Amino acid sequence: MSDNRRRFLKLGVTLGSVLTGCNRAKSPTAELDDEGPKRLGKPLSEYGERSSFETVKRSTPTGKNLEIGATRTPLQECYGVITPSSLHFERHHSGVPEIDPAQHRLLIHGMVDRPLVFTVEELKRLPSVSRVHFVECAGNSGSEWGPKTAPNVQNSHGLASCSEWTGVPLAILLEEAGVQAGAKWLVAEGADPCKMSRSLPIQKALDDILVVYAQNGEAIRPAQGYPLRLMVPGWEGNINVKWLRRIKVSAEPFYTKDETSKYTELMPDGKARIFTFEMDAKSVITYPSGGQKLLKPGFHEIRGLAWSGRGRIEKVEVSADGGKVWTAAKLQEPRHSKAFTPFRLPWTWDGGEAALMSRSTDETGYVQPPVEELIAVRGLNSNYHNNAIKTWKVHPDGSVTNA
Amino acid sequence: MSDNRRRFLKLGVTLGSVLTGCNRAKSPTAELDDEGPKRLGKPLSEYGERSSFETVKRSTPTGKNLEIGATRTPLQECYGVITPSSLHFERHHSGVPEIDPAQHRLLIHGMVDRPLVFTVEELKRLPSVSRVHFVECAGNSGSEWGPKTAPNVQNSHGLASCSEWTGVPLAILLEEAGVQAGAKWLVAEGADPCKMSRSLPIQKALDDILVVYAQNGEAIRPAQGYPLRLMVPGWEGNINVKWLRRIKVSAEPFYTKDETSKYTELMPDGKARIFTFEMDAKSVITYPSGGQKLLKPGFHEIRGLAWSGRGRIEKVEVSADGGKVWTAAKLQEPRHSKAFTPFRLPWTWDGGEAALMSRSTDETGYVQPPVEELIAVRGLNSNYHNNAIKTWKVHPDGSVTNA
Repeated sequence: MSDNRRRFLKLGVTLGSVLTGCNRAKSPTAELDDEGPKRLGKPLSEYGERSSFETVKRSTPTGKNLEIGATRTPLQECYGVITPSSLHFERHHSGVPEIDPAQHRLLIHGMVDRPLVFTVEELKRLPSVSRVHFVECAGNSGSEWGPKTAPNVQNSHGLASCSEWTGVPLAILLEEAGVQAGAKWLVAEGADPCKMSRSLPIQKALDDILVVYAQNGEAIRPAQGYPLRLMVPGWEGNINVKWLRRIKVSAEPFYTKDETSKYTELMPDGKARIFTFEMDAKSVITYPSGGQKLLKPGFHEIRGLAWSGRGRIEKVEVSADGGKVWTAAKLQEPRHSKAFTPFRLPWTWDGGEAALMSRSTDETGYVQPPVEELIAVRGLNSNYHNNAIKTWKVHPDGSVTNA
Repeated sequence: MSDNRRRFLKLGVTLGSVLTGCNRAKSPTAELDDEGPKRLGKPLSEYGERSSFETVKRSTPTGKNLEIGATRTPLQECYGVITPSSLHFERHHSGVPEIDPAQHRLLIHGMVDRPLVFTVEELKRLPSVSRVHFVECAGNSGSEWGPKTAPNVQNSHGLASCSEWTGVPLAILLEEAGVQAGAKWLVAEGADPCKMSRSLPIQKALDDILVVYAQNGEAIRPAQGYPLRLMVPGWEGNINVKWLRRIKVSAEPFYTKDETSKYTELMPDGKARIFTFEMDAKSVITYPSGGQKLLKPGFHEIRGLAWSGRGRIEKVEVSADGGKVWTAAKLQEPRHSKAFTPFRLPWTWDGGEAALMSRSTDETGYVQPPVEELIAVRGLNSNYHNNAIKTWKVHPDGSVTNA
């Protein structure tokens, strides 16, 4: 560490003789007193905004229907575990409905003894929990199966974000309704015009599913399901049904359009995998990553994010030489289960070519695979569930590209 | 728990015969298909906003200078550990400066071998950490010394908020500059027009102070110090200098106007305490709290926040009878050091009068005191550092008032 620290010196401009006399100034704060703004700043406000100098944004689709598609989180310009709610990725099938929470209801019915209807206010009064969880679209990194065309990590991995969610455990609502013998599935349905709906095994609901009304400390954003969302920790994003209005309990899955026409994986033998719920352990380096530029050789902190749908991240290894030598990165603590885990590793760039890779291992012992291993099993017929190791190539001029 | 759960039933409306035939419907999702919006929702966006139905806001001052004063976080309508950046409390002495990060510099000088100037971009490339910490104004709960006039928890405790902060340890910058023998203090100065500045012992800087550039995953908000802020975990808010532009190392404190005319406590003997940095362990119930109304007797989840400037919260006890019987609440995990720790406790309101109190204990064993104990030591000459136990009174009509 001491060695690395000495290198930082090159980053700060030494003032040398310019400030030699500072300690002798009569007032300890006098020497800069004639600098800086002279008039009052902006007034206080009821609900704050970011600086007008900030231009970080989600990437938006360019198709003709701007209500249908995805925006991607600029992971290369995010920090820590929490994704700002304003930058959480979006994936909508029929736009963002404007829902009046006073009018919204959640219905729980089907194979239950007591069908129930809840208002949002009623749900907020029930026992609550807050947990940090990622949401990742099953189609994230779909660009990374064949030739790597995504120019940056926002495009290649930006369909994943992480928030602190607050809500009521679905198990409590189901217990209240009284699940009948033989019930094994449920379908969750959204209040968007297309009525996005997905089937889930009831066992997961009894484990850790939440009906959430808050995200990062305030009401869920409309693009994330305001006023209610199903939070299914670690499972593919599409199942985390937004604008949740209905949960129906049943003996069998429902085979909705959203789990048959989409979100299945066509395998090499022509059969399709269905109900591939869990997101496998994954990681990606966000600095240095595609589109960025290293200013000069010397110290750089390699940074990235790791996550697993099966629990905590146990280890992230980083390689700068395309996978020959791997070094364990430092993981940000505390590590939340089924959540982003930032990792960091000091690195000295020698000014030559480098191939940067990260490989995560989760608490089940699962190790993030190379893309070749995924292709060997699954072929190239489906875009979903690509959790392969990602490589960024650093060039001698400091530019970084997708490899 | 099972007993409590049975009570929830009263909150949900049972549908009874209305939906009796649902399971026999031919399409499992048919019975509600004619409800809900029929046209596409709003399009995707680059930077999301909250719902137009949300009106939660910071309380703003009504004086003639809206650049000078404080806004308070609506703790009664916040969830979990993270305070939304848009709702983080503000306390400005000369408004919010609009700073171009490309022009901003951080100077480190004084008793150092190598005075240094850093750009924001240079700081972002140094070794980074992300940590969750509260910031609390020393004047928070100043209304709670004598007659309790604050109508709600926003007014009584809303000068406290909690964020995930990302930046570079100040110890690294100081090591880079080379602190000289005999240096024991530093002064941190902001780039606001009044040049808010405070002295700190250098030992704290070597321990856990950060120079932060990010809050809750994105650039710090202007009202929180964009583009750089000093993050001094657990110490009074004023020391967490916003718009940080300078750190000067010295042998003695500087006795700036912000630590002599303000932020001292006049004791009963006429002497003033100065440099009372640490915020003592504190807690407050946010539901039920002043201005709220309990709809009916039965189950309610008592919720609140606890924090300590000295480390982790170890225990929060809750009383519903004015302090006779205390019950341990459930603490949200993981518990971060020097951060908000939400607590929750199921409670059955019998419809009578109740006096709700919470009492926190931190990892040093320090126990939050009654206000009488504080007054016995400090008298009533100063408003700062009131961490007393807070009582909310529940009336038979369900209304809640400051007690």
